[in-house]
Amino acid sequence: MTSDSDSNDELPYGSLIDLKIEDRVYRGVLMPSHRFSQEDILTLKLDNGYNIGLKKSDDMEITVLEEPKDIHREEDKPKKEEGLPKISILATGGTIASYVDYHTGAVHPAQSAEEMIYANPELADRCVPEVDVLLSKLSEDIKPQEWEMIAERVVEEFRSGSEGVIIAHGTDTMGYTSAALSFLLEDLPGPVVLVGSQRSSDRPSSDAHLNLLAAVEMAKSDVSGVYVVMHQDLNDRRCSVHLGTKVRKMHTSKRDAFRSINCEPVGWIDPLKEKVELKELPDRKDTEPKIRGGIVKDVAMIYVHPGMDEKVILQTSGSKGVVLIGTGLGHIPTDLISSVEKITDDGTPVVITSQCLYGTVNCNVYSSGRKLKEAGVISGRDMLPETALVKLMWTLSREEDTRAIMEKNIAGEFSERRWV
Amino acid sequence: MTSDSDSNDELPYGSLIDLKIEDRVYRGVLMPSHRFSQEDILTLKLDNGYNIGLKKSDDMEITVLEEPKDIHREEDKPKKEEGLPKISILATGGTIASYVDYHTGAVHPAQSAEEMIYANPELADRCVPEVDVLLSKLSEDIKPQEWEMIAERVVEEFRSGSEGVIIAHGTDTMGYTSAALSFLLEDLPGPVVLVGSQRSSDRPSSDAHLNLLAAVEMAKSDVSGVYVVMHQDLNDRRCSVHLGTKVRKMHTSKRDAFRSINCEPVGWIDPLKEKVELKELPDRKDTEPKIRGGIVKDVAMIYVHPGMDEKVILQTSGSKGVVLIGTGLGHIPTDLISSVEKITDDGTPVVITSQCLYGTVNCNVYSSGRKLKEAGVISGRDMLPETALVKLMWTLSREEDTRAIMEKNIAGEFSERRWV
Repeated sequence: MTSDSDSNDELPYGSLIDLKIEDRVYRGVLMPSHRFSQEDILTLKLDNGYNIGLKKSDDMEITVLEEPKDIHREEDKPKKEEGLPKISILATGGTIASYVDYHTGAVHPAQSAEEMIYANPELADRCVPEVDVLLSKLSEDIKPQEWEMIAERVVEEFRSGSEGVIIAHGTDTMGYTSAALSFLLEDLPGPVVLVGSQRSSDRPSSDAHLNLLAAVEMAKSDVSGVYVVMHQDLNDRRCSVHLGTKVRKMHTSKRDAFRSINCEPVGWIDPLKEKVELKELPDRKDTEPKIRGGIVKDVAMIYVHPGMDEKVILQTSGSKGVVLIGTGLGHIPTDLISSVEKITDDGTPVVITSQCLYGTVNCNVYSSGRKLKEAGVISGRDMLPETALVKLMWTLSREEDTRAIMEKNIAGEFSERRWV
Repeated sequence: MTSDSDSNDELPYGSLIDLKIEDRVYRGVLMPSHRFSQEDILTLKLDNGYNIGLKKSDDMEITVLEEPKDIHREEDKPKKEEGLPKISILATGGTIASYVDYHTGAVHPAQSAEEMIYANPELADRCVPEVDVLLSKLSEDIKPQEWEMIAERVVEEFRSGSEGVIIAHGTDTMGYTSAALSFLLEDLPGPVVLVGSQRSSDRPSSDAHLNLLAAVEMAKSDVSGVYVVMHQDLNDRRCSVHLGTKVRKMHTSKRDAFRSINCEPVGWIDPLKEKVELKELPDRKDTEPKIRGGIVKDVAMIYVHPGMDEKVILQTSGSKGVVLIGTGLGHIPTDLISSVEKITDDGTPVVITSQCLYGTVNCNVYSSGRKLKEAGVISGRDMLPETALVKLMWTLSREEDTRAIMEKNIAGEFSERRWV
């Protein structure tokens, strides 16, 4: 066994065992623990392919029936085909970057490029995969400065001849990262595709494999720009392609959690049939990709609600910018508008978005909106609150007029379609 | 003219006029201004029923062709039918509580019960409406203490013989108020129905009238509990009935903006056919309604995002409780968990919900969730973040164990259905 996860434990991971707890005996392959595992639970892969979790106890008995098989045998190695496009796959962590050991069936985060390819041998039939592990993080732990690092690697990958770049990413903050890359990357010659999975590869319902194959098809397509590719529905056949600035995780666990908000997805992919349908998107270009601007992380985000204290607004005074997630068309309680004005008077940009998510902010309909506008607040129009946050972080790094950039459609963050 | 809005202005509101601006003449009835109007805009109702807005200017000329007709003539008054149920309609403000003057077509907020009935004469065919104006506020300005006042009035209305109580409410925070009433009201003998509208009654696409008629049907139904009634779709025929704790405004402007989250609506109403289809809901009871608990407003709400500073968490230290709107299954960046622990160590309850909105929080899947649980954070399960906020405000008013109440299903805030 080459797994990293059994080094500090004497359990016979990878072996076929009988595990006796009290009067019951469970037969299966003992799965290695990994950093997503609960510490006191043993996982056993049963003959029917399902995993079960069993609480560790002192009186359990383990009988090893069969030693673990060796993995990474030479003949398993995917062969690189001639003429296939080079696609970079950058792993940052999360469920998608888990590595399925086909000999034991165990899942653990890919620690190396080799593991990532072994977990997905079909990759090599579709492209020449250049895999690298950039980060190994749950996505809630990815920091804004890491968006810059990822963007820099994307530029390098294109410069070194990749035709597309895939970012394997945890789903929690994938929408924030896709928005950040959309603003940070300029003159992209080809597609940058973020992909994640909602169910780890050891579960029969896992979406990891299909999503990754769809991401490869997207990375090979004739377009440029930043996209997110995830399950379209629960049929396990098609994936949707979302614009990096318009996509949001709308379910904690379902495979079709990612939705385009205030617009349609920009494409659909049937990876098993290698079928890619895309709307009109920017073509591949013969351009030199570069980073535009950077990320200023000191931006506050406020969720507006009844009973909100004005101190919540005033406490943002050290921030470089503020995003308000207002109610309805973009409102906050009228008696808090003067506090917002104190912030804007100091020259701090304040952007208003809506907790409705769908539809557009409109500060002209009601008096409270008009007062907010008079207080100097910038309308986020139909931008997602998360995209507005990332855009403001990015805009603040530039030496141009903040309001002008915030109001300009930089990376499709405003829909063309009017919402009625 | 009896409108309140022309008192400080000499314009001939209600008159048929020719309005000449530069070289164009517009003919129509001059609408009174109201508090939702823009100050520098005149509104003219054209012969085709549409309103147009024209910018006031010094060189415009007005010719009065016809004086305004009297309104509130005796013969217009709706007759109270015998045997119809008494339904209370409490106006709190917002677009729904606007008053359409059928003689001029003008819209302004109902300032009196009379106006509310005149605006909706069919009410009197369906019930004996007892109308009162409690508040005249945009709903973003409704304060938590006003939820208590509304709840007290609901109790009084039932005690004085009403068979159902309708609350006409602005849509921005209607979901917060419906959640508050769900927790505050106990032993309700009949239904409490919140209703709003997304388009004011002067617009051809207004949903005000249909929603109000549907609310009356719901208020007359054989159930008890707190509900929200709003357009089901854009067909202008049916309304959905939502549980007060599970409903959220999901679009800034569309008429079908209100959606049940993590459950189906509990009913559908075709008000023109007087058809009401309801799922299994608590029956009407012969009980004495009462207020349980109160509202403690000092609860903070934090929207978790990449780059969030720990000070955002630490600054809540004066609050009585905190609701986190985490990512995914209910996560926050791992390096912020120790800050949360400082808050919980002080005995302040912290509840975690998800910005995905759909699906349920699960702190057992990933290590970051397990650490949050170890830090003493209470899982909001599949409760809406807004409902969790209101429930925590309510729970803190009670002298019982906060965690125990937060984890108990009080008013349908947790769905029975498991989300996979």
